[in-house]
Amino acid sequence: MHRTPIGVLGASGYAGRELCALIAQHPRMSLAFATANEQRGKTVELNGGRTVTFIATDDAPLGDAELVFSAMPHGASKVWVEKSCAAGAKVVDLSSDLRVGNDDNIPYGLTELRRESVRGASVVANPGCYATAILLGLLPLLEGEHVERGATISVSAASGVTGAGLSARTDLLFGEVTENFRAYAAGNTHRHLNEMRAVLGELSCDADVLFTPHLLPVARGILATITVPLSHAIADPLALYRKRFAGEPFIEVVADLPELRHVNHRNVARITVMPVEQVRRPTLLVLSAIDNLMKGAAGQAMQNANLMLGFDETLGLPT
Amino acid sequence: MHRTPIGVLGASGYAGRELCALIAQHPRMSLAFATANEQRGKTVELNGGRTVTFIATDDAPLGDAELVFSAMPHGASKVWVEKSCAAGAKVVDLSSDLRVGNDDNIPYGLTELRRESVRGASVVANPGCYATAILLGLLPLLEGEHVERGATISVSAASGVTGAGLSARTDLLFGEVTENFRAYAAGNTHRHLNEMRAVLGELSCDADVLFTPHLLPVARGILATITVPLSHAIADPLALYRKRFAGEPFIEVVADLPELRHVNHRNVARITVMPVEQVRRPTLLVLSAIDNLMKGAAGQAMQNANLMLGFDETLGLPT
Amino acid sequence: MHRTPIGVLGASGYAGRELCALIAQHPRMSLAFATANEQRGKTVELNGGRTVTFIATDDAPLGDAELVFSAMPHGASKVWVEKSCAAGAKVVDLSSDLRVGNDDNIPYGLTELRRESVRGASVVANPGCYATAILLGLLPLLEGEHVERGATISVSAASGVTGAGLSARTDLLFGEVTENFRAYAAGNTHRHLNEMRAVLGELSCDADVLFTPHLLPVARGILATITVPLSHAIADPLALYRKRFAGEPFIEVVADLPELRHVNHRNVARITVMPVEQVRRPTLLVLSAIDNLMKGAAGQAMQNANLMLGFDETLGLPT
Amino acid sequence: MHRTPIGVLGASGYAGRELCALIAQHPRMSLAFATANEQRGKTVELNGGRTVTFIATDDAPLGDAELVFSAMPHGASKVWVEKSCAAGAKVVDLSSDLRVGNDDNIPYGLTELRRESVRGASVVANPGCYATAILLGLLPLLEGEHVERGATISVSAASGVTGAGLSARTDLLFGEVTENFRAYAAGNTHRHLNEMRAVLGELSCDADVLFTPHLLPVARGILATITVPLSHAIADPLALYRKRFAGEPFIEVVADLPELRHVNHRNVARITVMPVEQVRRPTLLVLSAIDNLMKGAAGQAMQNANLMLGFDETLGLPT
Repeated sequence: MHRTPIGVLGASGYAGRELCALIAQHPRMSLAFATANEQRGKTVELNGGRTVTFIATDDAPLGDAELVFSAMPHGASKVWVEKSCAAGAKVVDLSSDLRVGNDDNIPYGLTELRRESVRGASVVANPGCYATAILLGLLPLLEGEHVERGATISVSAASGVTGAGLSARTDLLFGEVTENFRAYAAGNTHRHLNEMRAVLGELSCDADVLFTPHLLPVARGILATITVPLSHAIADPLALYRKRFAGEPFIEVVADLPELRHVNHRNVARITVMPVEQVRRPTLLVLSAIDNLMKGAAGQAMQNANLMLGFDETLGLPT
Repeated sequence: MHRTPIGVLGASGYAGRELCALIAQHPRMSLAFATANEQRGKTVELNGGRTVTFIATDDAPLGDAELVFSAMPHGASKVWVEKSCAAGAKVVDLSSDLRVGNDDNIPYGLTELRRESVRGASVVANPGCYATAILLGLLPLLEGEHVERGATISVSAASGVTGAGLSARTDLLFGEVTENFRAYAAGNTHRHLNEMRAVLGELSCDADVLFTPHLLPVARGILATITVPLSHAIADPLALYRKRFAGEPFIEVVADLPELRHVNHRNVARITVMPVEQVRRPTLLVLSAIDNLMKGAAGQAMQNANLMLGFDETLGLPT
Repeated sequence: MHRTPIGVLGASGYAGRELCALIAQHPRMSLAFATANEQRGKTVELNGGRTVTFIATDDAPLGDAELVFSAMPHGASKVWVEKSCAAGAKVVDLSSDLRVGNDDNIPYGLTELRRESVRGASVVANPGCYATAILLGLLPLLEGEHVERGATISVSAASGVTGAGLSARTDLLFGEVTENFRAYAAGNTHRHLNEMRAVLGELSCDADVLFTPHLLPVARGILATITVPLSHAIADPLALYRKRFAGEPFIEVVADLPELRHVNHRNVARITVMPVEQVRRPTLLVLSAIDNLMKGAAGQAMQNANLMLGFDETLGLPT
Repeated sequence: MHRTPIGVLGASGYAGRELCALIAQHPRMSLAFATANEQRGKTVELNGGRTVTFIATDDAPLGDAELVFSAMPHGASKVWVEKSCAAGAKVVDLSSDLRVGNDDNIPYGLTELRRESVRGASVVANPGCYATAILLGLLPLLEGEHVERGATISVSAASGVTGAGLSARTDLLFGEVTENFRAYAAGNTHRHLNEMRAVLGELSCDADVLFTPHLLPVARGILATITVPLSHAIADPLALYRKRFAGEPFIEVVADLPELRHVNHRNVARITVMPVEQVRRPTLLVLSAIDNLMKGAAGQAMQNANLMLGFDETLGLPT
């Protein structure tokens, strides 16, 4: 069967390599090129044993690809999205460059929220990893207008170190991360807050979000622990979630507590919701787990690419 | 100099061993006995290379000790506290048996809150590890009546596995914990909630607490991430904390974010507090880190024992 | 297509679960039953999200399976192999019960050495994990009679904790394994030594083996570091290895150093060999890495099962 | 009491910080300066909570120190040793610059071998971490001429990542090291081989050493697993070791197997030795564990400094 040629820009990072590995095992795609300026000419081994050789980004034959994934750094990605479009390729942009405040033709690719917009789009802004975990965990409450107006949704989330990328930072060395745990971007200053606030606004939710990310001594995975003040008690919140996500191939609504090991290396969000005892105001606790490199990056990007190319949404994705 | 004889009941667990190691390096204490029913007769090596040989708890010469630390399991400890008292020893109980709803003669040994009561007590109920981190993180706000009435304080906390004790549980095996992260006792069902609620009540705080603990892939350390809705904005919360804890030998109020590596193997709580952006209601974020086995267990117990025996509070404690 | 019914005895351990997961994704197999006495009635989730419900081993409908994997404990497995045979099933036994000194009808299932015997067998003794890594690493030297007579092959190997099984031992708790490293079964006392010596004998190698296993703070993977005194210098040992293993689907002879991350979750042995500098006697250094649960247990068992059932050897196996 | 002023050159790395922490808790030393060119002006927190502020190395008031520790990089250290000497300071050099082939006035500071030379020296070359673990493990056999002439001593050793220093290398990122294990400098190419060979030569040992280091997913600690072919059987090797190291304050000869957790954060080498079964030639297995940053670097350096300054050798060192 004909395989659709796909390009990856910025392929040497964690998300880029994961994209190359997904393309390699996709039944309808082939890798047209993978770029990495600093590692051009270098051949690396992907998960599963296949290899890929990087070319310089400037040398990318953009026109050879029907779709391009851009895993370029924030700030540097936008221009390559434009070049890829100009060369006739569809684009899924994994950077934050196009997520908020762009023209309406670039849907925010939280697939379970924007499936139809994604299907017809030529460019999609792939959500951030934390935003994916948190927004999917809130979606049934936001769409049903269950959140108390003016309240604060408190989110404590923790991520594995691959969320920070494959960059030579001393604070990410094994010796600094092992047996440690710390918050960062505290006080509501994380980049992903903007896209979360934007989605809340679009869904007419009047609540604030207080988001505190943490760095875990694990390679991959995000767990978000979310406290949601409600405008009214919900009798069976789990039923509400199950109904909302019925038929979704990549959402697992569960009764027990999601763990990183349940989701890592899989393109799923695993979510539970429960009422809390000994608190007077109606409040829900939501726990949402994803693999930051799969459902939080490369996997969701592939999910969107499948839709944009008219493929089955689940093609080539590990569940 | 004369050394005060000290006994340890239930010495084979993580907290018990830490107590034995602290006694071994204490300039004014000597170890009278250390009990461990299942490991009686066994000699183990403490941190630092010294060894201790366990005897059966029933064989403990309680009367030989001026002070007994009970690190017996919850439920089994209370009777040994009573026996130790009857034998004439002072007792610091590390179990939860005496923490809430006991007679007024047994102070709750959160030292920085109850120093004077501890000093004169013959029995002290040593706080739980999570409760220690969280209550110390809240103390300046509780005492100053800064918390919004009727609000919910949202606490997400994470602990190393030694918090669960040295018990042969398959869910605590290395293979199950490494590269994993998970919540437990979700929905506000953790044992330590009771003692936290009791302290809030005593300090006339009308807020609820929503507490979600998590299991970290680290051996030791607790980090509590706390969202506090305020009744009014506080101009300089860090100054408030610094004033409250001025002179406290074991509290570090810091401007940067506390990490587990800052506190492990030390008897300190390291705390920061900051206002949060992009949230309309006045809200503070508090981060509080302790070593669950030191300030969260053996260290705080030693701090209390020092006071009960008339020693300098800091004697024999690593800062 | 018809799927061959397969049973798993002792399915609740790490190897047993891995077998169930492999069967679940095998294109020609279906899971007839999975037994676990202590967890009978319990439903667990496999890697990949599928679930399996255990039945008591005594209730296993052995006759329903065309092939049975026995992952029963050493010592308890042999009787179940016999029962399974009596019920008409073929058996791959993952225990050590049948590996050494049994009748000639039970081949030792180191597939790359005994492929033809395995193909015709009704019972196969699956090799131990360490023995697999080490023997595959030595095979080209053993078969070519390159090892110095009377010499000692020195093997230092390290394994992840899943090699010790899913058993509630305090020495395998996260708090005891993290940030630690230790040898065990030192002085040449490990169980796998017997099967290695047996193979050396069958291949007319007169050398001794000195094998020291170590416990790594990782979940899975074995790396064996092997010093081999030669009877004569070998000009290009890598070429020798490449020639020996040409066409082998599950052996990767590489020029760079094999790492655990190269092999984990894959049914491969990754091997390099190199001469050593500054040593006067001709000596080779061999490094051999496998995933102890895949090529070292469930994967190799499946490789053997594929042969015994007349399937392509690589069917359903991750490379 | 007067405190001797001590300087640290290259203080921002792992060994340098450990030196600063040791000086801070030393009863007879005070920190005169600590240099770090790239981090000049920066204040960092040491283990134990104290802080140190780095100055530029060029600004170091070398003459203010009675003794200087140089933890400068290999190659860059020698010139600073010379400058320090010219300024009148004694020097312990932790780099490899002066370890082999230098004039006889610079003893190789393996304290247990060269105590008297160190005592009178103005410059000491502190041994490498691996060399320390391995040579201490071999010392009783080397000095007694027990090693088979012409034989190969096979050493497999594994180290925590701090052995590679606090440098921003992507291969040392948490995401690359966790759940991994790998050899490096294989084929007998590690820098420390030279100093080991030099010591063997000085002790008239005719054996070769085949040394293979590995990178462990732990922060600190080295375990060396050593196979020693003997010229003759030794009846009670443990007694031989106990006799050789009797009275040594920092050597623990033990009957059970040394583990990293036994030695980390302590200035000790913990060693066992045992005969091996099922090997025809007389052979011993030696296991030697140290903390690479303490006995393998800063601790041994302090041990040497104590001797050079006429202090008790154990002063300020954690055992």
